[in-house]
Formats: sequence, C-alpha cells, structure tokens
Amino acid sequence: MRRVLCYDTTLRDGTQAEDISLTTEDKLRIALKLDELGLAYIEGGWPGSNPTDKRFFQEIQNYHLKYASIAAFGSTHNHRVTAETDPNLKALVDSGAPVVTIFGKSWDIHVTEALGTTLPRNLELVGDSLAYLRQHFREVFFDAEHFFDGYKANPDYALSVLRRAKEAGADVLVLCDTNGGTLPVEFRAIMSAVAAALPEARFGIHTHNDSGVAVANSLEAVELGAVQVQGTVNGYGERCGNANLCTIIPSLILKCGIDCLPEGKLPLLTPTAHFVSEMVNQQPPSNQPYVGDGAFAHKGGVHVSAVVKNPLTYEHVTPESVGNARRVLLSDLSGQSNILYKAREFGFELDKNDPFVLELLTTIKEREALGYEYTAAEASYELLLNRVLGRARSYFTVTRYRVLDDNVYESDEPLTEATVMIKVGGRVKHTASTGRGPINALDKAIRKALRGFYPRLAEMRLLDFKVRVLSGTVEDEQCGRGVCGTASHVRVLVESGDTAKRWVTVGVSHNVIEASFQAMEDAINYKLFSDDKEKLTKALKG
Amino acid sequence: MRRVLCYDTTLRDGTQAEDISLTTEDKLRIALKLDELGLAYIEGGWPGSNPTDKRFFQEIQNYHLKYASIAAFGSTHNHRVTAETDPNLKALVDSGAPVVTIFGKSWDIHVTEALGTTLPRNLELVGDSLAYLRQHFREVFFDAEHFFDGYKANPDYALSVLRRAKEAGADVLVLCDTNGGTLPVEFRAIMSAVAAALPEARFGIHTHNDSGVAVANSLEAVELGAVQVQGTVNGYGERCGNANLCTIIPSLILKCGIDCLPEGKLPLLTPTAHFVSEMVNQQPPSNQPYVGDGAFAHKGGVHVSAVVKNPLTYEHVTPESVGNARRVLLSDLSGQSNILYKAREFGFELDKNDPFVLELLTTIKEREALGYEYTAAEASYELLLNRVLGRARSYFTVTRYRVLDDNVYESDEPLTEATVMIKVGGRVKHTASTGRGPINALDKAIRKALRGFYPRLAEMRLLDFKVRVLSGTVEDEQCGRGVCGTASHVRVLVESGDTAKRWVTVGVSHNVIEASFQAMEDAINYKLFSDDKEKLTKALKG
Repeated sequence: MRRVLCYDTTLRDGTQAEDISLTTEDKLRIALKLDELGLAYIEGGWPGSNPTDKRFFQEIQNYHLKYASIAAFGSTHNHRVTAETDPNLKALVDSGAPVVTIFGKSWDIHVTEALGTTLPRNLELVGDSLAYLRQHFREVFFDAEHFFDGYKANPDYALSVLRRAKEAGADVLVLCDTNGGTLPVEFRAIMSAVAAALPEARFGIHTHNDSGVAVANSLEAVELGAVQVQGTVNGYGERCGNANLCTIIPSLILKCGIDCLPEGKLPLLTPTAHFVSEMVNQQPPSNQPYVGDGAFAHKGGVHVSAVVKNPLTYEHVTPESVGNARRVLLSDLSGQSNILYKAREFGFELDKNDPFVLELLTTIKEREALGYEYTAAEASYELLLNRVLGRARSYFTVTRYRVLDDNVYESDEPLTEATVMIKVGGRVKHTASTGRGPINALDKAIRKALRGFYPRLAEMRLLDFKVRVLSGTVEDEQCGRGVCGTASHVRVLVESGDTAKRWVTVGVSHNVIEASFQAMEDAINYKLFSDDKEKLTKALKG
Repeated sequence: MRRVLCYDTTLRDGTQAEDISLTTEDKLRIALKLDELGLAYIEGGWPGSNPTDKRFFQEIQNYHLKYASIAAFGSTHNHRVTAETDPNLKALVDSGAPVVTIFGKSWDIHVTEALGTTLPRNLELVGDSLAYLRQHFREVFFDAEHFFDGYKANPDYALSVLRRAKEAGADVLVLCDTNGGTLPVEFRAIMSAVAAALPEARFGIHTHNDSGVAVANSLEAVELGAVQVQGTVNGYGERCGNANLCTIIPSLILKCGIDCLPEGKLPLLTPTAHFVSEMVNQQPPSNQPYVGDGAFAHKGGVHVSAVVKNPLTYEHVTPESVGNARRVLLSDLSGQSNILYKAREFGFELDKNDPFVLELLTTIKEREALGYEYTAAEASYELLLNRVLGRARSYFTVTRYRVLDDNVYESDEPLTEATVMIKVGGRVKHTASTGRGPINALDKAIRKALRGFYPRLAEMRLLDFKVRVLSGTVEDEQCGRGVCGTASHVRVLVESGDTAKRWVTVGVSHNVIEASFQAMEDAINYKLFSDDKEKLTKALKG
C-alpha cells in the first residue's frame, strides 16, 4: 500500500491564527497527543524566534515519542552573513531536533522586494543553508514559499530554486501555496509541470485555505505523487487557515487506499481534534468534515428513517471509522448507543433495556441541557456513571463555602479569602485560606479541610483550568435582550494530576466561582475514587 | 464572457443545518438581500411541506425582484398516485413561483430501499412529474439526488434517470453529491463520462461538504461545462454544509473570468454574508475564505511589513474586491509598523521617530507580557493610545470594590453581593448589588454608582464575555511545579454594545473577578469616551 507522511504544523503555522497562542506546556501536551495519533512529523516551532519555542525543543527531549519525529522550523540564512555564522541556523542546530524544515523564497518579487536581495544571491542562500543543515540533521525539508505564485510569475526561476535545494541535499521539496490563491485546475497544471521537470525529486505539499480548496489541492498533490502532506489539526492557521489534516487523513485512508497513520489509529482522530480545540480554547466547528459534532447528525425525518434502515444511504463513511458518532437530532434515541459504548469503556456491560440506562440517559440529557459537556471531562462522566449505578461512595460533603474578594485601589493586591465547611462521616471541619484569586483561595481551603482525613490528597495538583461562556443559554432579568454576558452560564474544565495520571472534571453555573468549585469537588472525589478502584483491582488480582 | 447562473438554496437546504430555523419574515428579508447581490435563482422552500414555506411563496409575490427568479422545491410524485393527482406537485404549481426544481432518485438502492418501488417505476415518476410541471413553469430543473453514488453503483441506471428527465423537458440536469463523499479525482471522471454520454444536456451541480471538497467539486463542474451552481450563503446546510456560494462566486469572477453576478455587485458579498449570519443568529466564522473577518488579517511582523509595501505579497485578491477589509492584528509578534498602521485607523498620523511612539511601544510590550491582548480588544487599545497621548479624560475613579459569594448547600442559589466605591470629580458614591455570580453583581453595582452622573450608560449593555486561562505565566508559591491551574493569570474579554455599535475590552489578573472588573471599567470608559468623541466631531463639522 502506498504511504504518505503527514507533517503537522499546528504548533508553528497554526499559532499564526488570530486567537491562538500556546504556552510551552500546551505545546508539549499537543505534541504528545499527536504522537499518540501516529503522525510522522510534528513541527515544534521556530527555535530562533522566541523563548516559548526554544523551551519546547529542550523539554520535548525528555519524552519518548513512539511515532513522530520533531521538526524545527526556520528560514534560509540572512543574506548579509554566511550559513556558518547565521544565528538562526545555529538555533536550529541547537534545538536538538532530528528533522529541520527551512523556508526560502521562490517568487522573484519576494526576493527583490521583501528580502531585498538579488535572484542569484537567493539561490546561494537556499543552497548554502541546506548544505549546512544537511550535516547536522537526519532529515532536511525545504519549504518553497509562495511556490505557485512564483511559478506563475517566473517559472524558470521558481524551478531553479527547487533544483538548488535538491542539489544541496533537501530530502523533500515542499511546494507551498502560501497565499492560498491557487485553484485546483491551475494547481494540477503547475504541479504536473514541476514533477516532469524534476523527475527525481520527492515532493511535499503545504496549502492555505484562502480559496476554500486547501484540502482539494492537497489531495491533488498526493494524486500527482507527493510523499508528504503538511497541514494543521482543525485547519488552524493565519487568515483562512492551513490545510486541515483532520479532513485529509480520513480521505486518504478510507477513500484513496493510502496509508498515512499506523494501523488502527484512525478512530483517535475525532478525540484528538477535540483535544486540540480545547487546548487552544476554541469551540470546535460542528460542521467540520469527519470530526465535527454535526458531521454525522441527521435532522430531516426522511434522512433519519433511511439512515436507520441503511446508514450508507446518508453517510459517506461510518462515523466509528474516524472515532465520531452518529447523532439523531430531536429524538429520544439520541445518545443511547454512545452511553452504552462509553459505559463499556469504564468496565460496565449494560443492556439497553436496563432501567439504569434510562436513568443515566435522562440524567445526562438534563445535565447536557444545562451546559455540562463530558467529551473532555471523562473523570466527571465516570463519577456520574458510578453514582447512578450506586457504586461511588461519598467521601465528603460540603455544607457551605464563602469567598470574599476585597480590592482597595491604593493597596498592592486584592485580598481574597475563602472559607469552607465540610462533613466527613459525622465530623465537621471549618477552614479558611487566602489565595491569588477566589478559585485559588477555595482550592487551598478545601485541601486544608480534607488533608487530615485523606493524606494522599497531598499528591494531587490542579494543573489547569479553562473557562467557556455558554452564551445564549440564560436571560438576565435586567437585560431581556437574549444573550447577556455577565449573567450567562459558564462551563469550567479543571485538569488535575497526581504522580501517575491526569484527569479532567467539569462544572457549570451562572457563577464562575460555583462552576469552578463543582469541578474541583469532582476532581478530589475522582482522585479518592480512582485510588480505591485501583486498590480493589489489585486486591482482587492478589 | 462565459456565464454561470448561481442558484441559492440557503432558504431550503441551508435550513437543514442543526441550529438554523427561519420564520417567513426572515426568509423574505434574506431573499431580498440575495436579489440585491444579484443571484440568478433563490430557492424559497418546499411549499408542500410546511406553512412557513407556503406563506413565503405567497408573500414574495408582493415584491418586485430585480435579478432573481424564485424557485419552488419538491420531489417526484408519490409512486402510488399519478403526477396530475399528486398533492405535492399541485402545491408546487400553486406556489406561483416561475421556476421549479424537483429531486428524484438516481441511486438504485435508494429507489428500492428508501422509496420502496421498482427501478422502472422510478423512471416513470421522474418523467411524468417533469412533463406535468413543464406545462406550468417557465423553467424546470431536475436534481438527481445521490447522483455520484448512484453512478458508482449502477452507471447505466443513473444515466437512464438523467435521460428520462431530459426527455420530459428538464432545462437543467443537476448532479447532486448528496452525501458529500466524492473526491475531486473521481468527481471529474464521473462528470466527464456523463457529459460525454449526454452531449446535448445542460448540467448543474449541487455538492455537500462532508469531505471538505464541495467548493473544489463545484469549480470542477464549471470547468467541465456546468451552467448552474447550487449552494448556500456561508455554506450552511445539513451535517458539514452545502457548497459555499460566498467562496465559489469570487473565485469564478476574479480567477476564472466567469460572469456570475451583475457588473459591480461583488463588493456586496461580504456584507451579504454577514447579514445572513445575523439572520440565522450564528457567529460568522472568522476564517471563512474571502468574506471572513480574518480573511485579510495579518499578524506576523514579517507579513505586515511586506503587505504594507506590496499587498500582493500576502493577499491573493484585494479585500475591497469582495467588500472585505484588510486588518492588521496587534500581537506580541508585531512591531512598530503595526502600531503606526493602527494609530492611523484611529485618526492619529504618528511619525516613527515621535517619542510617543516609543512610549506606546514600550507600554504595549509590557502589557502584552502580562497577558493583555489587543487583537480582539480594539476599544481597550484605542483608550490606551489616547491615554498615552494625553487625550482621554478620567470619567471616574474606583477606590474600592468587594465581592462576597456565599454558598449554603441546603439553600437554592449561592448569594452573591458586590459593593463598589467610586469617585466622580470630588463626589464619592458607594453602592451595593446582588447578582447571578460575582461578575454580574459587580456590573450591576458599578452601573448603579455611575448612572446618576452619566445617564447615557443606560443605553449600554454587556453582551458577551470570554475567559482564557494563560497557563504557565505564574507560579503558585504552594505549587512550585510550573503551571498551577488555580493561581494562573486569566484574560477576560468583554463585548459591550449600545444602539449604534459594539466594542471589546480586555482585563488580565490572577483573579478572574479582578480581570473582569478591569474589562468592565474599560468598557464603560470607552462608551463615555467614544460618545464625547462623536459629539466633538459633529460640533467641529457643524
């Protein structure tokens, strides 16, 4: 079976998108997730350009990646110096990455206007930079920036840039449609001509979506022999985004018979797409091909009954093949199979006629209507499942908490104080703590209250929290105009971890403090519950 | 110049999207707007299926449309009756529309499984229905549902359906990729074979975006001779949506030299797209090709300086050609040229050697390092600019605020109370309010404090707020492991509006309450500042 290698640039080109910025920790978590999916290359960033990226390349070396090779990104060397003395090329080498990708100019007006040098000098920059990097990396890729526009303006020059890159040792020549303006007909004509002119070369493709055809052009390129496809998760990227790998990958595997993920990994695609959208804190578009919540959602009655008879009638692929699920909108059937599926994951073989399933379905529907969302918050879901089935004990009860936030403008910092009253068995504990903000103060107060009862909570940390406003769910009595920001529901996701694992919990309320507190309560309960479960499993085995 | 006719089905297929439902009045307003843009056909709905659509066809007859013809939509007649006695065909005729489109089955399994009839009987349904409608309409179009899947399963039968439709008088045979699963390579092969088999026929195209190639396939179809392109505004439609006319139209006009709107109408495209997204109450996707807010937004410093020199370097078409505008984003990637460009937008002609520019740059860099982000919060930026230049007065000073959040678990709702102390001139005002959560309580308390001084604040509403946790920026003294969720910085964006405009402001703190309060303070200041600016501008003119 023919193989194409996917090259992810979410961490570099994806962060050029308007609302996306990632910390080093975010980048590490995304990289590990993409490795799990089985992508061949993960471009980590531009180590010469900023400290976030530089730290990423240091930290990632502490992890063992199973499938992916990390690539460092940069440009050809500055035209005023040599490759050997260029600080940016040196930063690439120092990154410790096994793979490097540099971009160079292939459009004549960019050479003269943007770069401010001559056409022959640009050929030297390309050749010298690649020849230098060739000595330090396992693989070297060359991104021919603006290649398609360059070819239209001056085909001979554009080709001579590619030739020089190949001679200097580039393993793959990546043709970039940087402005995203090339339509498929023209794209095919140019790429065919280029492939004919350089019959020995291996090509990659990097497209942008300014004309809405980034995916189609990437598929054309593969059809014409490209061995590498560059893109981003969910198509994140500057302006209209990059080619969406979540669309390209299933089309290649399921429709073109091309191998681009390790065997059995395709069902991780939807969860990976949703994970990355959580990390960049953006609502995943419901209408995204293959991985969108709406990609297999059926509304019209005609469609629904046909789909129930034979899914093929209104579904181009099976939702399970990409880890998604069929949704029947406005119908009581919705969700049941997901619930059974999910319960199986947590070790419960439920029957759909089991009365617990109905209760669970009702509970979940009610909570989802309030804005709870369990896709990312699996720990909350597992707790809920066990509570409905009567298998989770109550470790503690909160009877009251209070937060006071006092901000006197001449003083340095606002004072925040939280008090928490809990019951464990028959004993009441009442504690207080200050903190940096209300959530932090509450977190500290509740730990103080519980640590005498459950010392192992000392291992647990709250690692991250995310807040999303669910606009349009509630009307404010004072507003009366539909959505009204400050009285909207908010959903808080809290990520916690101990030495062995990480888990995510959820809370929803009008009140950001209350929503956070719910998620923290769940997080602590989950820690205690999962430790007990593990002990029990060990005891049963031993 | 070759001409292709655009056929809009936003009002019918577009409303199959998960979150879209339109009243008759909405539909009328959208139809008038699409007529203004100059589309050739507007499909109004399915008059036989529901009262909303039936009323639309009655009402639209009261309007004089300049460019568009209204089309009624339905299916071939029921196989148990004849064309003459079928109530749905009668409803089509009664609609009073000049154009009719009916869909029929062209995939054999759909005939036998979904329709429950025989293959020859389906040919009769197609032929008889079209022959009957032919007598009552100026133009008759036939949507061959699932044509591409049908052709793959049984090419002879799929072609015989088209032949029968043509013989019965269909003006255009519309090939539908109903499940959206056909990739461009296969699409071209099938459409070429079909065009060769029916050399006299006129073809239309109707694609869905389940493989992310609906636009590309529509362009292919035009390349292969299609005379009609069906699609929706913003690509609305079931599952992953229909072909997006807002992407196809500019590509045809600007890049393929094909005429599909009246002369001079293309700049109405962006306002039309935004109008329709308002009518269906959905946030327009910022990354939409051509018409998205981000389609011509530039972030990286390298890009910005190149775009300023020569827009062609990073823009595939001019934003003005489609009624959009260039935006230069303010971000930590940006430099002096972005700031000068932005200042010009707000009416300041600054010189890069002006000492204020240096101060501004330093201030912005400091604030960005703390996590402030002005890309989305242009109102906060305009205030900052005017403060640094000494042109913004102080409308009020907050000296203290306090929030108490008290949650007693047996009671219904947590009690939240905020108090605010402000000074306006020499006068001190101290107010209190409850609210649904701390932010809502503070919002109410500060308005209470200010409304005596500035009654026009009654016009202003907080419309939305977004919270983003900036992980990795701060270490908690108790945590010491880098990122520590509950003590991280948060960034809050608040969107406000009055009767005339909307604006966004930003706040950053460890404390979500403090960050929100900062953004609300800026929002109120901006309202007062921009009202004054407007008054001044009017006074100077008058």
